[in-house]
Amino acid sequence: MSLIVIGSIALDSVQSSYGETKDALGGSAIFASLSASKFTKVHLIGVVGSDFPQDYLSMLKKKNISLDGLRIEAGKTFKWSGLYNDTNQAETIDTQLNVFKTFQPEIPDSCNDAQGIFLGNIDPDLQLSVIKKFPKDIFVSSDTMNYWIKSKIEKVWQVIKYTNLLFINDTELKMLTGIQNIFLATKKVLSSGPDFVVVKRGEYGSFIMGSDLLYFTPVFPVEEVKDPTGAGDSFAGGFLGFLNDYSCLNSEKLKEAMLIGTITASFNIESFSTKELESISRQDIEIRKKRLEYFCR
Amino acid sequence: MSLIVIGSIALDSVQSSYGETKDALGGSAIFASLSASKFTKVHLIGVVGSDFPQDYLSMLKKKNISLDGLRIEAGKTFKWSGLYNDTNQAETIDTQLNVFKTFQPEIPDSCNDAQGIFLGNIDPDLQLSVIKKFPKDIFVSSDTMNYWIKSKIEKVWQVIKYTNLLFINDTELKMLTGIQNIFLATKKVLSSGPDFVVVKRGEYGSFIMGSDLLYFTPVFPVEEVKDPTGAGDSFAGGFLGFLNDYSCLNSEKLKEAMLIGTITASFNIESFSTKELESISRQDIEIRKKRLEYFCR
Repeated sequence: MSLIVIGSIALDSVQSSYGETKDALGGSAIFASLSASKFTKVHLIGVVGSDFPQDYLSMLKKKNISLDGLRIEAGKTFKWSGLYNDTNQAETIDTQLNVFKTFQPEIPDSCNDAQGIFLGNIDPDLQLSVIKKFPKDIFVSSDTMNYWIKSKIEKVWQVIKYTNLLFINDTELKMLTGIQNIFLATKKVLSSGPDFVVVKRGEYGSFIMGSDLLYFTPVFPVEEVKDPTGAGDSFAGGFLGFLNDYSCLNSEKLKEAMLIGTITASFNIESFSTKELESISRQDIEIRKKRLEYFCR
Repeated sequence: MSLIVIGSIALDSVQSSYGETKDALGGSAIFASLSASKFTKVHLIGVVGSDFPQDYLSMLKKKNISLDGLRIEAGKTFKWSGLYNDTNQAETIDTQLNVFKTFQPEIPDSCNDAQGIFLGNIDPDLQLSVIKKFPKDIFVSSDTMNYWIKSKIEKVWQVIKYTNLLFINDTELKMLTGIQNIFLATKKVLSSGPDFVVVKRGEYGSFIMGSDLLYFTPVFPVEEVKDPTGAGDSFAGGFLGFLNDYSCLNSEKLKEAMLIGTITASFNIESFSTKELESISRQDIEIRKKRLEYFCR
């Protein structure tokens, strides 16, 4: 069993009231891969520039993450810098796409053992090109973002049509559907293809909806949110990695995956970049999950 | 066992995308009393004008709500009119305090069997005057609002000092404490007196925190929010009415009360004014609570 993770790999410079980082490891594919790797083998598909630190590559390799699908191209790695104010809203200071601008995901043969793909919030045209490379029975989960909903909404809907499980935040969901009631908006997406939609609501938790399922998960109570970057991706990675076998998804398994995703995200935001995600063990996740269960069951 | 409910009694004129009402029954004490009355005897303390419809009084009397503490004064009843936009944010069009302006709560002797008081979001000076009329061992729950936090913050903190259980919404809590992290903000309030704080988060649910308790409750998924007026008060009323006996509060009972409050609020917002709250039975609440448990446990 393994999971293919496709998305951005970035060097992030982040400022929050707890400090700052410069050119630290980031990107949707990184947060998702590190979280998923606690539970399953991960194939990371992405691109970095020749400036990408060797240390980061070595760390990823040690974590059950295959880099066969990682391209190292001449040029600079995708860079993002942002600032978080007190309410954890990101303000982008600068974005440099660099080698990510011409990224064309290529899937190596070593990915043939994968049962699922996670498509991070990249260009929906790229997401579609990836989906078409796989047999129809592979489990497709995808994410998107406001930028693509604004600029390529029809393509976003096409991706959703081929998606088994969509991750989306509540603001994006309302923007995508034009429906203010979050439950009706989720139902609209469900009627367009996916079996399940996971709605992420930031500090308010998340819920999953399917034809016979509705399940709410609160956040784990983190008192010091040092760097919220990658919270959604670390949720998705933990969720998908924990499921591992996508051929038999029942409500109980999905509910547990919601708790696990909540926990991997909670660790992620407690440190800058990937520090916590790198250091935690599966047991750390299990212990915190038990505490979360006490808070919501 | 009985509960004293003190707060505003209003004639509300509300517009939302689902329609409108004119001079319909409303006010914090009304929503809280009707919800609590599904579980316990309620003493309603408040004031109305001579224009207050007799039909409303008759309806309240039939609902296990004692009106011994209700004053009918010469003049007009408190009137509020507001508009809800798509995101359920209230926009006040007009407020006429009328007889409510000089309201001085008086507690009749028939309230002596009460074990608890709910102080709706009235002037904290009035809340303090009421608290001082009761023996120290009565269970005090209170609510407040942004208006009083802005204008009388020290008095609000004094009320909190005497409060056993505080209901507050997340925006008010951040304003009151000056702390952005909701969990740290709640802890600050807990360190000032109350045994428990219930944080209301609108469409995102609520949580209760005590020294040994943290429990999150999602909202019940309502697809047609016709009139959100009184959601917080119907939550508090259902919660407190269900508890009924405040002398032995354990975590399991409080968790159940959170679910019940969520359900009474969910019924309330599905109709204008008090229509749903008037018509539902305790069994309706129980049935919906079972569904909610499936969505979060």
